[in-house]
Amino acid sequence: MTTQHDDLIRRALEEDAPWGDTTSDAFLPADAAASAVLAAREDGVLSGIGVFARVFELGGVETALEVDDGSRFAAGDVLARIQGPARAVLCAERVALNLVQRMSGIATQTARFVEAVAGTPARVVDTRKTTPGLRALERQAVRDGGGHNHRYSLSDAVLAKDNHLAVLAAAGIPVGEAIRRARERIGHTVHLEVEVDRLDQVEEVVAAGVDTIMLDNFTPDELRAGVALVAGRALVEASGGVNLQTVGEIARTGVDIISVGALTHSVRALDLGLDIEVCT
Amino acid sequence: MTTQHDDLIRRALEEDAPWGDTTSDAFLPADAAASAVLAAREDGVLSGIGVFARVFELGGVETALEVDDGSRFAAGDVLARIQGPARAVLCAERVALNLVQRMSGIATQTARFVEAVAGTPARVVDTRKTTPGLRALERQAVRDGGGHNHRYSLSDAVLAKDNHLAVLAAAGIPVGEAIRRARERIGHTVHLEVEVDRLDQVEEVVAAGVDTIMLDNFTPDELRAGVALVAGRALVEASGGVNLQTVGEIARTGVDIISVGALTHSVRALDLGLDIEVCT
Amino acid sequence: MTTQHDDLIRRALEEDAPWGDTTSDAFLPADAAASAVLAAREDGVLSGIGVFARVFELGGVETALEVDDGSRFAAGDVLARIQGPARAVLCAERVALNLVQRMSGIATQTARFVEAVAGTPARVVDTRKTTPGLRALERQAVRDGGGHNHRYSLSDAVLAKDNHLAVLAAAGIPVGEAIRRARERIGHTVHLEVEVDRLDQVEEVVAAGVDTIMLDNFTPDELRAGVALVAGRALVEASGGVNLQTVGEIARTGVDIISVGALTHSVRALDLGLDIEVCT
Amino acid sequence: MTTQHDDLIRRALEEDAPWGDTTSDAFLPADAAASAVLAAREDGVLSGIGVFARVFELGGVETALEVDDGSRFAAGDVLARIQGPARAVLCAERVALNLVQRMSGIATQTARFVEAVAGTPARVVDTRKTTPGLRALERQAVRDGGGHNHRYSLSDAVLAKDNHLAVLAAAGIPVGEAIRRARERIGHTVHLEVEVDRLDQVEEVVAAGVDTIMLDNFTPDELRAGVALVAGRALVEASGGVNLQTVGEIARTGVDIISVGALTHSVRALDLGLDIEVCT
Amino acid sequence: MTTQHDDLIRRALEEDAPWGDTTSDAFLPADAAASAVLAAREDGVLSGIGVFARVFELGGVETALEVDDGSRFAAGDVLARIQGPARAVLCAERVALNLVQRMSGIATQTARFVEAVAGTPARVVDTRKTTPGLRALERQAVRDGGGHNHRYSLSDAVLAKDNHLAVLAAAGIPVGEAIRRARERIGHTVHLEVEVDRLDQVEEVVAAGVDTIMLDNFTPDELRAGVALVAGRALVEASGGVNLQTVGEIARTGVDIISVGALTHSVRALDLGLDIEVCT
Amino acid sequence: MTTQHDDLIRRALEEDAPWGDTTSDAFLPADAAASAVLAAREDGVLSGIGVFARVFELGGVETALEVDDGSRFAAGDVLARIQGPARAVLCAERVALNLVQRMSGIATQTARFVEAVAGTPARVVDTRKTTPGLRALERQAVRDGGGHNHRYSLSDAVLAKDNHLAVLAAAGIPVGEAIRRARERIGHTVHLEVEVDRLDQVEEVVAAGVDTIMLDNFTPDELRAGVALVAGRALVEASGGVNLQTVGEIARTGVDIISVGALTHSVRALDLGLDIEVCT
Repeated sequence: MTTQHDDLIRRALEEDAPWGDTTSDAFLPADAAASAVLAAREDGVLSGIGVFARVFELGGVETALEVDDGSRFAAGDVLARIQGPARAVLCAERVALNLVQRMSGIATQTARFVEAVAGTPARVVDTRKTTPGLRALERQAVRDGGGHNHRYSLSDAVLAKDNHLAVLAAAGIPVGEAIRRARERIGHTVHLEVEVDRLDQVEEVVAAGVDTIMLDNFTPDELRAGVALVAGRALVEASGGVNLQTVGEIARTGVDIISVGALTHSVRALDLGLDIEVCT
Repeated sequence: MTTQHDDLIRRALEEDAPWGDTTSDAFLPADAAASAVLAAREDGVLSGIGVFARVFELGGVETALEVDDGSRFAAGDVLARIQGPARAVLCAERVALNLVQRMSGIATQTARFVEAVAGTPARVVDTRKTTPGLRALERQAVRDGGGHNHRYSLSDAVLAKDNHLAVLAAAGIPVGEAIRRARERIGHTVHLEVEVDRLDQVEEVVAAGVDTIMLDNFTPDELRAGVALVAGRALVEASGGVNLQTVGEIARTGVDIISVGALTHSVRALDLGLDIEVCT
Repeated sequence: MTTQHDDLIRRALEEDAPWGDTTSDAFLPADAAASAVLAAREDGVLSGIGVFARVFELGGVETALEVDDGSRFAAGDVLARIQGPARAVLCAERVALNLVQRMSGIATQTARFVEAVAGTPARVVDTRKTTPGLRALERQAVRDGGGHNHRYSLSDAVLAKDNHLAVLAAAGIPVGEAIRRARERIGHTVHLEVEVDRLDQVEEVVAAGVDTIMLDNFTPDELRAGVALVAGRALVEASGGVNLQTVGEIARTGVDIISVGALTHSVRALDLGLDIEVCT
Repeated sequence: MTTQHDDLIRRALEEDAPWGDTTSDAFLPADAAASAVLAAREDGVLSGIGVFARVFELGGVETALEVDDGSRFAAGDVLARIQGPARAVLCAERVALNLVQRMSGIATQTARFVEAVAGTPARVVDTRKTTPGLRALERQAVRDGGGHNHRYSLSDAVLAKDNHLAVLAAAGIPVGEAIRRARERIGHTVHLEVEVDRLDQVEEVVAAGVDTIMLDNFTPDELRAGVALVAGRALVEASGGVNLQTVGEIARTGVDIISVGALTHSVRALDLGLDIEVCT
Repeated sequence: MTTQHDDLIRRALEEDAPWGDTTSDAFLPADAAASAVLAAREDGVLSGIGVFARVFELGGVETALEVDDGSRFAAGDVLARIQGPARAVLCAERVALNLVQRMSGIATQTARFVEAVAGTPARVVDTRKTTPGLRALERQAVRDGGGHNHRYSLSDAVLAKDNHLAVLAAAGIPVGEAIRRARERIGHTVHLEVEVDRLDQVEEVVAAGVDTIMLDNFTPDELRAGVALVAGRALVEASGGVNLQTVGEIARTGVDIISVGALTHSVRALDLGLDIEVCT
Repeated sequence: MTTQHDDLIRRALEEDAPWGDTTSDAFLPADAAASAVLAAREDGVLSGIGVFARVFELGGVETALEVDDGSRFAAGDVLARIQGPARAVLCAERVALNLVQRMSGIATQTARFVEAVAGTPARVVDTRKTTPGLRALERQAVRDGGGHNHRYSLSDAVLAKDNHLAVLAAAGIPVGEAIRRARERIGHTVHLEVEVDRLDQVEEVVAAGVDTIMLDNFTPDELRAGVALVAGRALVEASGGVNLQTVGEIARTGVDIISVGALTHSVRALDLGLDIEVCT
């Protein structure tokens, strides 16, 4: 079991019980044991079962997984089984659930977007609109739901957006020249992507040599025109106004990438519950 | 400006730029300045404007607030003005937006619940179903939306739920006796609350001396009967199955407290945008 | 064994050996083993034996406990047995002793106060006059000595003291009105306590609806009058000038709570020693 | 003002208000200002006024010092003046007082020991029996009281005690040989000290070449004999059974160093109080 | 001045003075001031002057820069001027020098490699053979010396090396298929590079679609053949056996990228000294 | 296995894979196992094999050591054997190698200096010119190479250098008097060393009572004169201009200590490689 998210888990446990679990200490016999099942109360795609188990493990509670991350499940399914001291189980319960419910909510929502573009070459990708502190987990949830990840952070890829272009314009630097200068300075492994708002910006950007061009808030017709204009010289990413109603049509315009902020910026926790059974 | 959330902000900035902002470094002149406004793209209730400003302040960018936390605003309103080096503004933008969008989303949703119970004595309160690491901010957002906070953590109040009662039952300890024992052990400032699932559990719990009794998943009629049975000996909290459609009727049953997991477990980020203007 | 205090222990070990144990490295054979007993050199009440054992455990040394926290012991009693590499035992010894000696000092002192109020309904409680960084452990020591805890921190209960009342007076806000406003704003699980210095302040405070009223530096006669005036409408806490000579008479005035800063603000480490035996 | 103890202070403030100061938020107008004086309620020697001021400074409160660390003061003296937002003053008060009261308690106690050896060449020094996490501050308090510091930690000097000698004996290594080997291995700046329990151990230890020999639990007559035997070949430290009654006689035996665990292992917080005045 | 490396600097200062600067405290008047110049004792390329200045700034010492990062300087040049309390200057001196000397050593060495490939299109890039904890600074030093950066970490680009290929071979997975699968799984911004040891591996790798192919330990003739075979379908990186004698010939084979572990795995600190002047 | 450097290791692993190992995740079967040997590619002295093993252990990989720290080895020797999941082995490889290569580079270089002074009483010692964050490991490497350590930090010994003397001179304080005052203030375990640049400074310094006098940048003849002048009243340390060519002659002047900045300020990583074998 990975220790990769232990700092996050420890902070969450500390946040939820800065000086102990008053209820368990006052109510429960110190030697009571408990077992429990993590049960699905609605259909979905699982994500975060590893971090769920690690929360319990750090509290001395054993977890046996019944379903793997990325799998679909139905309401009523048992996803994992837990066994340990009653006080420890109840102390870790909320933090463990908060994590797996949110991640599974993201994975399930992502899966809906991925289904909606089935049969097209388009990828559904996430954005940097993630919860501060939880990006690695939310990215994993997108992958568990069948989506792909965009760049992780400001450090690992170049993405010049409208605001960057506005600063360049004010400084009197043509965007094509800026792209060529940037390419000269960045490492050879750094992907270079530029966002445009209008079709007439496409040629200058692509001609200057980008890896991906982002077409922001384009209509499907404009997207089709953009794809034709790029003509394979760069990947084409559609962004803006993407939802479950529009994503299919966007995918059929021939774009390579569709980025969807809603995968992570608005999350509905999936209804997964812990049903405690007392050991006898 | 408070430094209370600096650790959280620093981790978020580190997460979003572990080794610098490649785009700004490669594209933008080092001496370019920028100003920007935080603009509302939909109506809502503001929350998190202080932490938004602190993110920029830590990067050397000045922020002037136009609207205070807890205020209502309309689409198109300017909420804050930002001024600083273009690289610093663009480096902090995403983290600052991620925080204020989520907190304002929570405040706006909370305000809807609070409106729905207007004219009743019932309070709308949050739960521990918060995002790991963000509880203090999400709690503030609930208050900014006009709601109240339930206990903060496992440490600061006793709340014995169905799972605790199940452990007690297995150990052969009557709940009334457990309550009396717990009261003897906890500090005099610790609130003691117990959850019940059925009306026939109410009398034993209240007679044993709790501060609040939680009636979980009761119908409105059952809630009314519970309120009558408690007869002012404790506060009555309704929980379970609360949404914008049901909360008004629940409030009219006479309960004191209505806890709503959805205030925080499912968040839609409010659409607030940063419109950058270049300084000339 | 709980990992709850590991951060504190690691900082203490780091403080006591920032770059290793020069003596053990220079003097002791790397493969020497040692066993030891923790022996009481005076009578007392034990507290902190769990954190004592955890210090050694983090260094790879096994500990077997002979006496539990909260138990009385006599000079000469063996409290725990230790076994491990000689270097590891000697490296952890001082930190482990510093913790258990102080905690047992607090528990033993608390037990004296608790004995002195035996036969009355009054509880002996601690204050926030704890050692910075050690509050959780010092609170546990008070409980191990038979005392109760007051609020843990500024966050988990309201306690308006003379200084708060002075600020209110300067702002022209009557205390009764301030109490009613505060009750409206705080969560339903937050205990509301107000301190008064004079008998003539009691009625306004109690009538406004507090959970506890603190009578600060009242004589026994004043306390008795205060208890009569409150008449069960709130808990009554006595504070100020409490010592082993006065606490019995204070308890017999009928107050519910007696807070004693001396439980933690002045600590005499109990004389517990580690007697090393060399393994052969 | 030094930032050296900021981590400690931040942890203490976080411990005392993990999610804000509920009382101030609920009771005090947000714009109320307050001034206060730190007043002595008993005579003593000041220590910790710098860290006291830094606690307030981190909360945005200004402090003007009237008395320096290491100075004597009398009951009634004003030691410092504070000015800032009322909420910030009251939020920082307890942590600031807890630190300066304990440090001044140590300095005052140390000064009594130092007075008791006046006229002799003996130094009063502390031990590693300090509060976990507070060693640097408690060491400073000893210096402020006129005492000297022993080694700071296990890392910065060699001190072989009875337990080390027992391990050596079991391994069949004569102490003199062990000392010679240790000298060969340690850096030339590392002080080498060995503890003995009996007079007949002195010669072997001193002859092997130590910098200091510690005579543990020796009677005054034995100490005098030890000093004569050492004859200036090493410093002589007396330890064990040192209190205000015995320290003078010990000092007059001619020892160079007297280590006193009680300087820090048992602390009585000095009675210093914050008297708040409201700004008008 | 950037706060980006404050954690690193604080740890370095803590490492170098865990409980204060004993020499300055014991020797220097508390109110003595000092000024100093950072002077070059040999020719070189500057790097790290910002972090040098930040070390002093955190200690309350002002620094005025005379030369920028990336500039060449000659022995005897003044690079910066320092002014502040003598104790603070001497306390920060070693940490500040350790950083700027090492970074300038790396920049100077990098500049030699970059000069040696002048006139060819080849870039000199670093590797992950950096000092644990200092990667961001060492990467900056490479850029200040005119070099480029390879991927920052295992997270931000794919680089399958001989060891990965060995694992694939054992699992019976052809490398071409593995590359195609990997491309399907990674984000569209993730650069995909594969290392080969022999010319006969080139075609399969390039045909499968990599962004860069690394030719490890190829002779110049083999490199030339590799470049011809790749024929512009991917970038070509030479690695292994690169030193100042060989790098020019390697560059003239037509490769795009030359990675040089020696830029960072073996560092000679440049001789820069702080000459203190006392203020009068 | 010691946990002493876990924080350093965790930071290094986090630095090298902030959000996972993209290559292993994309290329390698999750269940592939691997074994490997750490092999020497040149002769040297081993250091850091413990921390090397701990890096792998934290990732769930087992390591069996074949050679101990401080041992000499020849090119081709196997130093350790590794076994574990292929992904975990490849993820930890670079961090583990970076540490052991640098430490062994230091140990090997130190051993050359130690050999060069063989037959003289002089010790070769390190300085504070270490890599920020790695001092404890680099000090160990010096010891593993047969050298000795100078003071660890500014906190644990007094070393007044030319800059301190300049400040004293400006303040009109004679160095002899400063030394006597410092001795009065520092603890009895604190070593007191003073640096001089000229022979005519020696007598005043030694007469005032130092433990060591450092003769900085003296010629061999001057060193001999200095040793004669000191005449055993203090240890004599030579510093400045020490390299493998000069160290022998310096040692034969009779000095006790020779400090060599080059042991750590310029490091050539030793060529040790990990040869992966795939498990079948």
